[in-house]
Amino acid sequence: MNRSMRNLSLLLIGIVLNSAQGDEIRREIHFPDILGYKTLVGDMHMHTVFSDGDVWPPVRVEESWRQGLDLMAITDHIEYLPHKDDLKADHNRSHELATETAAKCNMLLIRGAEITRDTPPGHFNAIFLRDVNPLKVPDFLEAIQRANEQGAFLFWNHQGWQGAERGSWRDVHTKMYENGWLHGMEVCNGPSYYPDAHRWCLEKNLTMLGNSDIHDPDLRKESMPGDHRTMTLVFVKERSVAGVQEALKAGRTAVWYQDQLIGRSEYLAPLLDASVQIDPPHFRSGNHLWLEVRNASHVPIRAVRAGAIGPAEAILPPRSTSLLELRVPKPDEPIDLEYTITNFLIAPEAGLPVKIRIP
Amino acid sequence: MNRSMRNLSLLLIGIVLNSAQGDEIRREIHFPDILGYKTLVGDMHMHTVFSDGDVWPPVRVEESWRQGLDLMAITDHIEYLPHKDDLKADHNRSHELATETAAKCNMLLIRGAEITRDTPPGHFNAIFLRDVNPLKVPDFLEAIQRANEQGAFLFWNHQGWQGAERGSWRDVHTKMYENGWLHGMEVCNGPSYYPDAHRWCLEKNLTMLGNSDIHDPDLRKESMPGDHRTMTLVFVKERSVAGVQEALKAGRTAVWYQDQLIGRSEYLAPLLDASVQIDPPHFRSGNHLWLEVRNASHVPIRAVRAGAIGPAEAILPPRSTSLLELRVPKPDEPIDLEYTITNFLIAPEAGLPVKIRIP
Amino acid sequence: MNRSMRNLSLLLIGIVLNSAQGDEIRREIHFPDILGYKTLVGDMHMHTVFSDGDVWPPVRVEESWRQGLDLMAITDHIEYLPHKDDLKADHNRSHELATETAAKCNMLLIRGAEITRDTPPGHFNAIFLRDVNPLKVPDFLEAIQRANEQGAFLFWNHQGWQGAERGSWRDVHTKMYENGWLHGMEVCNGPSYYPDAHRWCLEKNLTMLGNSDIHDPDLRKESMPGDHRTMTLVFVKERSVAGVQEALKAGRTAVWYQDQLIGRSEYLAPLLDASVQIDPPHFRSGNHLWLEVRNASHVPIRAVRAGAIGPAEAILPPRSTSLLELRVPKPDEPIDLEYTITNFLIAPEAGLPVKIRIP
Amino acid sequence: MNRSMRNLSLLLIGIVLNSAQGDEIRREIHFPDILGYKTLVGDMHMHTVFSDGDVWPPVRVEESWRQGLDLMAITDHIEYLPHKDDLKADHNRSHELATETAAKCNMLLIRGAEITRDTPPGHFNAIFLRDVNPLKVPDFLEAIQRANEQGAFLFWNHQGWQGAERGSWRDVHTKMYENGWLHGMEVCNGPSYYPDAHRWCLEKNLTMLGNSDIHDPDLRKESMPGDHRTMTLVFVKERSVAGVQEALKAGRTAVWYQDQLIGRSEYLAPLLDASVQIDPPHFRSGNHLWLEVRNASHVPIRAVRAGAIGPAEAILPPRSTSLLELRVPKPDEPIDLEYTITNFLIAPEAGLPVKIRIP
Repeated sequence: MNRSMRNLSLLLIGIVLNSAQGDEIRREIHFPDILGYKTLVGDMHMHTVFSDGDVWPPVRVEESWRQGLDLMAITDHIEYLPHKDDLKADHNRSHELATETAAKCNMLLIRGAEITRDTPPGHFNAIFLRDVNPLKVPDFLEAIQRANEQGAFLFWNHQGWQGAERGSWRDVHTKMYENGWLHGMEVCNGPSYYPDAHRWCLEKNLTMLGNSDIHDPDLRKESMPGDHRTMTLVFVKERSVAGVQEALKAGRTAVWYQDQLIGRSEYLAPLLDASVQIDPPHFRSGNHLWLEVRNASHVPIRAVRAGAIGPAEAILPPRSTSLLELRVPKPDEPIDLEYTITNFLIAPEAGLPVKIRIP
Repeated sequence: MNRSMRNLSLLLIGIVLNSAQGDEIRREIHFPDILGYKTLVGDMHMHTVFSDGDVWPPVRVEESWRQGLDLMAITDHIEYLPHKDDLKADHNRSHELATETAAKCNMLLIRGAEITRDTPPGHFNAIFLRDVNPLKVPDFLEAIQRANEQGAFLFWNHQGWQGAERGSWRDVHTKMYENGWLHGMEVCNGPSYYPDAHRWCLEKNLTMLGNSDIHDPDLRKESMPGDHRTMTLVFVKERSVAGVQEALKAGRTAVWYQDQLIGRSEYLAPLLDASVQIDPPHFRSGNHLWLEVRNASHVPIRAVRAGAIGPAEAILPPRSTSLLELRVPKPDEPIDLEYTITNFLIAPEAGLPVKIRIP
Repeated sequence: MNRSMRNLSLLLIGIVLNSAQGDEIRREIHFPDILGYKTLVGDMHMHTVFSDGDVWPPVRVEESWRQGLDLMAITDHIEYLPHKDDLKADHNRSHELATETAAKCNMLLIRGAEITRDTPPGHFNAIFLRDVNPLKVPDFLEAIQRANEQGAFLFWNHQGWQGAERGSWRDVHTKMYENGWLHGMEVCNGPSYYPDAHRWCLEKNLTMLGNSDIHDPDLRKESMPGDHRTMTLVFVKERSVAGVQEALKAGRTAVWYQDQLIGRSEYLAPLLDASVQIDPPHFRSGNHLWLEVRNASHVPIRAVRAGAIGPAEAILPPRSTSLLELRVPKPDEPIDLEYTITNFLIAPEAGLPVKIRIP
Repeated sequence: MNRSMRNLSLLLIGIVLNSAQGDEIRREIHFPDILGYKTLVGDMHMHTVFSDGDVWPPVRVEESWRQGLDLMAITDHIEYLPHKDDLKADHNRSHELATETAAKCNMLLIRGAEITRDTPPGHFNAIFLRDVNPLKVPDFLEAIQRANEQGAFLFWNHQGWQGAERGSWRDVHTKMYENGWLHGMEVCNGPSYYPDAHRWCLEKNLTMLGNSDIHDPDLRKESMPGDHRTMTLVFVKERSVAGVQEALKAGRTAVWYQDQLIGRSEYLAPLLDASVQIDPPHFRSGNHLWLEVRNASHVPIRAVRAGAIGPAEAILPPRSTSLLELRVPKPDEPIDLEYTITNFLIAPEAGLPVKIRIP
């Protein structure tokens, strides 16, 4: 059955039903709003057949929607076009073809492109562009400058993907940085984490991003705690493309990568607070207390004791309640526990320190 | 390793960690609070080795907790004791053995028993008992009376399990009913739904219950939308055994059975309202509108058109967002849709009618 | 990271490892060989971006391989080309782009196309073509004739997709049939079953096919009993494109559709025999026997009693062993059971009859 | 509904149908027969309510059958009886109560018990007993001797469970060993692996065992590659209790523990051979070859290069086919690869070495 006829029959019944296969169901991703900002989730690095990806552009919107994303950018390579014998090369085309599907899905679609030169200097995504075509110029820095002239947010992709040496910080990066042309870095790209990128974001006040860099169809039906794409949490003042742009330029992000959240402690600490609910003890026997702890987020919480009392370690699985048994010196007094949340990364190999009072 | 030594080692680390197998994780069941009441979920019919069940009593508490229940009653048969050559027969023993585990798990544990005579008159559960042993008397009605003298809530189990004729309403039931000795009926028991019981609850103002009647270990790790035990929603003023008792006597319940909710429309209507969120349309093209609808509950919502406009049917899967495309005569005016929610059963074969305004 | 560089790094380690996501793992589909033929499984109807599909051609090979298929045909529409402003229109291109991936995956790739006119006459797939381009002619029957001149196997797709009337058998079909230009019919297309097509295959000795007609990316990671694409079993003399062609022309096929196998009893009967193993009874108590029955196939087997003794119905789940308790009149004598396998369809609404002897 | 009435209704339909929940379906465990022996799988360490377990004895049979086991022993503690106030203490009772269910399920049920003293000397299972009661004597070695007088197979359980020091080999073990009273050791018990036990089995020619030591209900519906109980493969001459006894005394076992197989290389090497099928290359491009490799077993196969050519590592997931790309110096000549299978453990930290010829 061809596509247009199929669409016609949908219109006749007047509604897009959820398919029997569940492909058109969206599962929400559960991260709380913090600090008065709304928490959105997004992916700002993905490819279509218009560069070296394998899917028609609307597929990227549909899979992002299904997996619970709020925002996305298609960032086809400008310089690397293996399908160019079959496909015309206007660099805005993949964005344009995705626009209507994005509108129907209520997805914030950001126009972007990947400036793809040798490494060094490496690959860079420019997003919030008005027109991609002017970026196709021979000189690397001129392309970067032109993107910035359009008001782009510009970030360095998968910095260490060809090894630490080829991904080292060089004069060209200093020049971009000092000109205000470089705004962020992919701390995580798909299955990879780049500690140098993480460190430089902290040292140079660059925005941290995590993206999928997906080329193939994404086989995930939904984002689940144990099976989600690498993505960026963006803490926005308003749910709009402009709102995302403001938040990215202000550095209000965190990265969800495998079972970790990576970000500045000023965002990870309130995310933790808003995700975990510790109930007062409901039962006591001798100097043992029992209490329930809820983790409402999609991320497991791994706690290792940093203080004198409490269990050596505890794991709160995502979207569940755990039953804790606590042996305490004086059951009648409040207990102060000190822990490190080892999978909330505030710097390379540094977990988030927390103090918890059990009433 | 024996159990006491294993427990000892747990005490040494001071906490009950979630096991690697995830057996000690509790998944919350998502039903909203309604009408100022708190919504609890429970199962008031289950067996242990102390009658014809297959598990030691604390297992019943652990599996109920893991599956997200708030309240439970162990209701071993009084008259049917196939293990009596191996096990002593005090009828309070299974409840007592479960008490400490229930306290640790913050589970409301209700003392109960199943009065198990021929059918007719059938099997009846008495819960909120103080002492089960006095119910062991030869005369059926005397047992029922003694339960009531202890303030029991009494309900007729799996009414039609041996066919409609053997499960018909007889003089003995009229006598119980007129004496105020019969308070509820199992509309659903495990995999079975009893329409006669459903009808009688509506006609005679009896409380509707749904229970598992589980004998074997429950292999479910958690209650999931597509795989949950039959259970009762109880709308309580306070989370306590007394609170449950008050709500049951007042008839404030609904039954979660397979993919259906069964109950009075005064409870199902607000449950639906609180479960579904319809966003304003986010996109319009000609006279087509696109909007998102969230179903926050654990029950799919199956809607069939009862009015003039809108799609013939729609399904909102549990815990997900659906994208709806609506063809409307006048896109600028609010739209009024009339539907029947066919899996919210307000009487046998009668779904819940709803009117929905799209702004 | 761009594709060519990624491939380079793979070559350096010299092997295509299974990816961490399990995307490059193939799960075998379990159907036994029968009657001296090898049983292959395939899908001969699918689309790419070169007509109205959503994926680049090699994706179709990768997902077919992953799901356990042995053979496939890409059958892009000749007349319906919604992406033609972006993509050049040589009708052989999608096949050619898939060829190398198919060779690497050991997939039998058959060149095909969909001749897509109004309904009636309907849509027809021609496969085993040498060159698709000559089929692009205004006259429908000329296109059909040209396909046949290339030795094509030609089948009618989703016959009833626009209703029984528009899908009725007309003079044009008689002409094709009498000229020997029509060889088969899609009895099943994706989620749809067409009983008229089924009946005509039996009446006119046409080959039965089941295909996916997939346009979007297939989100299934593998073919599982409860979640597989609609496909065709082909009973070949040799594993080659020519072997498939010979088998299709000879009508040696069956269709795997949802939980049903559809085909001629001459193939379904030996498939059943080879899939089910009934062990001799291993335990006896009075006139009750216990025995184990294995279903080695991917299809559940639903049996309804047609004779005098045995259970009213039984279900043998896929890839599992079931324990049967049989009450028999004379435990010392062999038992003859008569059943209908209701999900092995030998004609519309007609299951496969079987006789089973329990020793 | 009570159990006996439920059974009655089953008899009326004459068959034990697979329940809707799939609880009575058995999934086969896939390990090949080797060296002319039949490969059985079993668990020889588990508990019921008759010591410190949580289930009635037939539950142990049902869950073992469902998970694909062929043989099992219930080994309730003799000395540790926390339920003794509620349950009578005949030490044969749990075995006897499981006997009929085992017969119906075609499960080889072995009478056993756990001799449970302090550590040291530790806990020991005696299986193939005729009568457990005589083992209840104060002196440890007398209990061991009495078990041996009944022809028992005797093994040391979870040797290091209280630390290496308390689990060290002492005079008492030497005495048992020299008297021929100790025949095997649990190399693995539930989630734990004991390298000392592994080493002693190799040094002293003791039989290697892996068991679950399960106390709670086993929530697994089936044994799956990634979620199975710790168990023992036994290579028998015949499928009978006597056949198992002969194989255990002869040391013909291997242990399936997490994603590892642990055993002597004389058994692991043929298990690997029979599990893996390497097809001849089906495609060649330059000096690159593509071939398919099937792993028919339930265990992933992790290979690390030990020779000069081939990929650094490869993983063959369980029950699947992998596609390998091989860069070879001379594509026309056979290739000899040398690898270590790191998860086929032939000694602590020593994988199985293999040579593979690609034709």
